[in-house]
Amino acid sequence: MKKPYLFLLALLLPLLAVSQTPAITRLNPTNWWVGMKYANVQLLVYGPQAGTLTYSVTYPGVKLTKTNTVENPNYAFLDLSIAPTAKPGIVRLVGKKGTQTVTQNWELKARDNSPKAQGVTQADFIYLAMPDRFANGDPTNDKFADMADPSSDRANPFLRHGGDLLGAAQHIGYLKDLGVTAVWFTPVIENDQSLTDEGGAKRSAYHGYGFTDHYNVDRRLGGNAAYKTYVQQAHAAGLKVVQDAVYNHVGNNHWFIKDLPMKTWLHQWPTYTNTSYRQQPITDPHAAQIDRRVTLDGWFVPFLPDLNQQNPYVANFLIQHALWSVEMFGVDAWRIDTYMYNDQPFMNRCNAALLAEYPRIHIFGESSVSNVVDQAYYVRNKIDFPFKSNQPGGLDFVLENAMLAGLKEVGGTSATGWDNGVQRVYQALAQDAVYQDPGKLVSFLDNHDHNRYLSEVGEDISKYKMGLTWLLTTRGIPSMYYGTEILMKNFKDPSDAEVRRDFPGGWPGDAQNKFMAAGRTAPENDAFSFVRTLATYRRTHPALHSGKLMQYLPQDGLYVYFRYDASGTVMVATNSTDKAAALPTARFSERMSGFSKARNVLTNEALSSLSTIQLPAKTALVLELQR
Amino acid sequence: MKKPYLFLLALLLPLLAVSQTPAITRLNPTNWWVGMKYANVQLLVYGPQAGTLTYSVTYPGVKLTKTNTVENPNYAFLDLSIAPTAKPGIVRLVGKKGTQTVTQNWELKARDNSPKAQGVTQADFIYLAMPDRFANGDPTNDKFADMADPSSDRANPFLRHGGDLLGAAQHIGYLKDLGVTAVWFTPVIENDQSLTDEGGAKRSAYHGYGFTDHYNVDRRLGGNAAYKTYVQQAHAAGLKVVQDAVYNHVGNNHWFIKDLPMKTWLHQWPTYTNTSYRQQPITDPHAAQIDRRVTLDGWFVPFLPDLNQQNPYVANFLIQHALWSVEMFGVDAWRIDTYMYNDQPFMNRCNAALLAEYPRIHIFGESSVSNVVDQAYYVRNKIDFPFKSNQPGGLDFVLENAMLAGLKEVGGTSATGWDNGVQRVYQALAQDAVYQDPGKLVSFLDNHDHNRYLSEVGEDISKYKMGLTWLLTTRGIPSMYYGTEILMKNFKDPSDAEVRRDFPGGWPGDAQNKFMAAGRTAPENDAFSFVRTLATYRRTHPALHSGKLMQYLPQDGLYVYFRYDASGTVMVATNSTDKAAALPTARFSERMSGFSKARNVLTNEALSSLSTIQLPAKTALVLELQR
Repeated sequence: MKKPYLFLLALLLPLLAVSQTPAITRLNPTNWWVGMKYANVQLLVYGPQAGTLTYSVTYPGVKLTKTNTVENPNYAFLDLSIAPTAKPGIVRLVGKKGTQTVTQNWELKARDNSPKAQGVTQADFIYLAMPDRFANGDPTNDKFADMADPSSDRANPFLRHGGDLLGAAQHIGYLKDLGVTAVWFTPVIENDQSLTDEGGAKRSAYHGYGFTDHYNVDRRLGGNAAYKTYVQQAHAAGLKVVQDAVYNHVGNNHWFIKDLPMKTWLHQWPTYTNTSYRQQPITDPHAAQIDRRVTLDGWFVPFLPDLNQQNPYVANFLIQHALWSVEMFGVDAWRIDTYMYNDQPFMNRCNAALLAEYPRIHIFGESSVSNVVDQAYYVRNKIDFPFKSNQPGGLDFVLENAMLAGLKEVGGTSATGWDNGVQRVYQALAQDAVYQDPGKLVSFLDNHDHNRYLSEVGEDISKYKMGLTWLLTTRGIPSMYYGTEILMKNFKDPSDAEVRRDFPGGWPGDAQNKFMAAGRTAPENDAFSFVRTLATYRRTHPALHSGKLMQYLPQDGLYVYFRYDASGTVMVATNSTDKAAALPTARFSERMSGFSKARNVLTNEALSSLSTIQLPAKTALVLELQR
Repeated sequence: MKKPYLFLLALLLPLLAVSQTPAITRLNPTNWWVGMKYANVQLLVYGPQAGTLTYSVTYPGVKLTKTNTVENPNYAFLDLSIAPTAKPGIVRLVGKKGTQTVTQNWELKARDNSPKAQGVTQADFIYLAMPDRFANGDPTNDKFADMADPSSDRANPFLRHGGDLLGAAQHIGYLKDLGVTAVWFTPVIENDQSLTDEGGAKRSAYHGYGFTDHYNVDRRLGGNAAYKTYVQQAHAAGLKVVQDAVYNHVGNNHWFIKDLPMKTWLHQWPTYTNTSYRQQPITDPHAAQIDRRVTLDGWFVPFLPDLNQQNPYVANFLIQHALWSVEMFGVDAWRIDTYMYNDQPFMNRCNAALLAEYPRIHIFGESSVSNVVDQAYYVRNKIDFPFKSNQPGGLDFVLENAMLAGLKEVGGTSATGWDNGVQRVYQALAQDAVYQDPGKLVSFLDNHDHNRYLSEVGEDISKYKMGLTWLLTTRGIPSMYYGTEILMKNFKDPSDAEVRRDFPGGWPGDAQNKFMAAGRTAPENDAFSFVRTLATYRRTHPALHSGKLMQYLPQDGLYVYFRYDASGTVMVATNSTDKAAALPTARFSERMSGFSKARNVLTNEALSSLSTIQLPAKTALVLELQR
């Protein structure tokens, strides 16, 4: 894959084919719906010499406005206009070439009334799981001999382990019990990728970020049917579903990569060029064009070809797939991988199409940046950048970084440093003026690409609880990586696989089953209960959903903030030092005035006086203030 | 001074005075000018029972529109309206009370045509000096027995050393030779303060930040006459003058503090309250009112009472003094102390008044903040903050911090770290999108409140030169603290005085005279020449004045940027590693295209080919590209 010019060869090969019989083997999108706002669909038609046919459509309310052909004769892009009056049914597509006639059916479905695109808000608590590593409900679909990677081996951290959507569905109750309100799976779309060779080890595409067919959920996860079923069951249980979308790249085994429609379908470079992974050239007013281009158009890794979203056919393909996914599966929110590497005007178009069709959907991209200026660039913000993003939310890397760096200093000599410890968290949030709505950012303490949270905080349970308390009480939409609640740990070194281990109990015959209290150790049950208590409290308390945040300047390592609205006031008081402290509360009168007592949300203890609050060492108290 | 209620006693005392004879002992401003845009002057009249008089003015074109009295009967505030037709002359102010008549003359001067308010731009290079510590031209004014602090002792780092404006004037040629185009003195206004007791040591107010009479330059510096003469001589030599303004506070020995006009003249607290020195409560949308108030209204130190600029009399007093200073002395730019602690709407009014009267003046405040969001808040910016600053410039603390932190890593193992070394500088500048014009920020490597630059970089001459090269070639208005050019060093620990040592040769009889090449060691002459070469080059090359900046993503510790306009292109290539490097330049074609050779500005060497540039270890090259 270090020789992208191979693609050019692939592109030229069809031209050499002699007198092939035209055929249509694929239509993308695979269907559409009547009554969509997005009613001008560009239908990708693929097959041998499919681009040499003359197309017609005869269906009431459906008009073929233009047939676009491109460099590769195996493709045609048909611009279809679907009238509001069109009825559900089978559209018959006819392609002719001389005496040959090729037909293909394309369905216009009726939209169903099932819940979809419900959005996620601060009222939610998202659980991020990797389907291959969470639970295996159907051992018969662990591997397929006809796939590019026919292997599955739980003993090998780099290979597929067989987890699937049926397995995940079997544990919807577990998540509900934990207080989770939304699940986010790493991508479920087909990754029919060969094993790659990285650093000597053969690695599978179990992570899901290398799509090979946008319109199929991976068979090893259960396929489209299992995904649809999962969403229906989740919805029935009151759990939302976040889909993980990837626009920037696809797997090098993607069917259209193996027979590229045109050279400009991808970002092509004379020699293989990786992205710099650098945020700055995009927002820097002093940046050079080449640095911008390397960041955006350089490839993420050699086996993930970088899509050129400035190519209108690519853009249409991706936008339509996004809409199709929401409509087909009924997902509620849209997480976007490697957001900052995408063409940003394209992202705005894509976001706008989703929001026009589904006004309540939430969209939050992954832009792994290190400061609020760059983070703001990728969401609706208050900075007059030359480009204005319309993305409603984003993953809050700045807050993650602040929380982890701060937690590492908790209890140590630097806990009370000028810019250290809880000051880091305070200072990150204090820059929220750059966002239109910081409450729409999605907070996290780790994810599948980072060291596990417990390891980051040195396996210190006090720190672990402190960070989770912040996550679940401060502004933003909290998300948590699977296994955090049962104290799963590990660093990414030596490999990502270390932080992507199987959830114990997710596989038939697992020696331990940590989905059940009886299968968890006492510390694991303590952690689980801690998360459940906070998550459950959060779920039922509007002050944590839509209440304002007021934070006070940390003093002597003590950090106090409030979430409040007309329905109630929740006080979070953190003692980041290694000594118990008595906190006089007179300073907080702007928020505490009128309250005389409180309930400790975590212990259920009653506090009968609020004039001074006793803070144990290395602890964050959550107090529901009472009159 | 830890008991501000003493002020209240001082306020009440005049009320107890019995049948005092009214008198006028002060008028502020001490004069005004005809033909000023600011033509409605609020004249502060002070004297025993001055507030009990009934005032009248009879002067063509001058109208007394309102007499304001306040709590303290020793004050009257007269609103005077000066018509465009008014002629220069002596306005006779008449105050009557029963049979008593008090008169006082107040001059309306003609404006002169001498240069003033010329502004400083990127074409300038500012030299910051402490007049008490730079040169002593008149040993007869070192101390005065009738002042609150009658001492002067060069052997004591905390006492006054006798430097003055005449001494500075004697070294205008030195600064010109060095390539300096503007001088900025720490405040010259009278600081008739007593010694303060800090940490056991008695300390004088030689720094100048505790004004005791706005309308007098300190006698020990030579008074108003010497300041006016200095500015005239500087201007004659082509040197601009920056005045250091202080709005936030005054000395506790200020005449109006000893007899407060009214309680609200100051920010009063029930018990002494220091500012938190914290930036965040001002910009944080989640901040508590009390945190905002402590930052803004808390006192900077106990002996510098905090002025309440929301009091309109205070605001008028300060604004008029600013205008008076520029008009009286002809200064060119306006540096504002502790800018972030001032009432920001007041600052906007004050800036607007200066800019209306003097459109070319530059204003740059000191806001010691740690991130670009907060730094942007205090200048004209591109962030939609609830408050919008109109300040044209500001001191660039973010860049200082980035340069110093980066330089410390130069040559070390972290020089090529992901976010280390030159990356810090690159990343600071890469956030310039938040400013309306980052070229109006004033850059620096140290100042009278920080460790000296040479010590910050571990006395490593390679690092010293590298940072100065950045300072003098990147965007912004460079400023340098006195003595940097002769390798003065020291840390602030144990005290500020360590970084405010006398310039050797500034005092009659000094054993060494480093104003002269012969008095400098070889390394000092090398440093001096280095600064002079760069400063002189900068002075004559418009690409460094108004050219754009283009910076490239650092790679392997090599950082390349360009300043360019139609007149020329200057390339700055930094090798921050400890090994020589060969830099291929193909990547920089956006800026280097068309150039085939170059002159090394620092060595005057000619480079006959630009395809690869040899970069010595720990070196920043400055190349003037040639066709």
